[in-house]
Amino acid sequence: MSRNPSGLDPSFHIHIPEGDDRERRVCDHCGFVDYENPRIIVGSVAIWEDRVLLCRRAIEPRRGYWTLPAGFMEKGESPAAGARREAWEEARARLETDQLLGVYSVAHIGHVQMIYRARLLSDAIAPGPESQEVGLFRFAELPRDLAFPSVTWAMRHYLETRDQTDFAPRSAPLADAEGGPPGL
Amino acid sequence: MSRNPSGLDPSFHIHIPEGDDRERRVCDHCGFVDYENPRIIVGSVAIWEDRVLLCRRAIEPRRGYWTLPAGFMEKGESPAAGARREAWEEARARLETDQLLGVYSVAHIGHVQMIYRARLLSDAIAPGPESQEVGLFRFAELPRDLAFPSVTWAMRHYLETRDQTDFAPRSAPLADAEGGPPGL
Repeated sequence: MSRNPSGLDPSFHIHIPEGDDRERRVCDHCGFVDYENPRIIVGSVAIWEDRVLLCRRAIEPRRGYWTLPAGFMEKGESPAAGARREAWEEARARLETDQLLGVYSVAHIGHVQMIYRARLLSDAIAPGPESQEVGLFRFAELPRDLAFPSVTWAMRHYLETRDQTDFAPRSAPLADAEGGPPGL
Repeated sequence: MSRNPSGLDPSFHIHIPEGDDRERRVCDHCGFVDYENPRIIVGSVAIWEDRVLLCRRAIEPRRGYWTLPAGFMEKGESPAAGARREAWEEARARLETDQLLGVYSVAHIGHVQMIYRARLLSDAIAPGPESQEVGLFRFAELPRDLAFPSVTWAMRHYLETRDQTDFAPRSAPLADAEGGPPGL
């Protein structure tokens, strides 16, 4: 997730930009201010009949492990549109997004995951370039090697709410998920 | 929202970074890749008895207009913790966040607003550096000069759901809010 993947020696210095209230990394050359904003990951628990779509990762981190179709939200799309794009890119799946199932904040790495409940429009799926294989799994027969805790959370939250039409999105069951100054 | 606020001449060129699938702006000097990820704005409809907390903006955009306490989420905090921090920074208000009231995606500017329902812990409020004044308003006596459409949406969605304990967060009533590739 580095914002400096080129390996070039960066020319950053640390100071408080005008109008700001905390120190930021600023590039001497391009003036870029590294606000280190949290990044949004969008994805889905996408269902065909009684089965869930999973993708076996072809890339690090957690290459070879199974995950829900999800990835970084891009500008110019809504979170739900991003979740549909990721399902297409990773599993060549077309789906209809329904409600927001979970908002999983992982404060220490600055990620906010927004996972939607979704329905596959067909069972025609195929691995995209970031997937080794894709599959539709019954919840009683899930692969054991799941990539991330949030994959487990989202499937559990799907099962908890599958018969509900109006519910609050679930949160990450993590002690550190809240973060922020104590008492605020 | 420029990421190059210094006015320096940037040394960007446009190319597709390795492992990516779309063109990005890259700085020749620091290697910074401008992914232009959407940014998360966190805020609250914060209530004291039958009144809502509003802040009159001391900064652009929309200086002098009234808004909900809200701002860019920082790394190291959850969205709800960020909403509490913003209420403290803008109105010296302490509050308890409840459910996620709205997720307002404004695709064309790359913002995702996450607005929480919240309860003020006391009516002790005071303007922070980004507010000209702060106030608690009955919904029948709101100021007319509201800063942003999402201020209106969030208060409307608060009133729609005020008696509910479990509900899906509302969306922006905008035709362009979805964005993303058509058909996906």
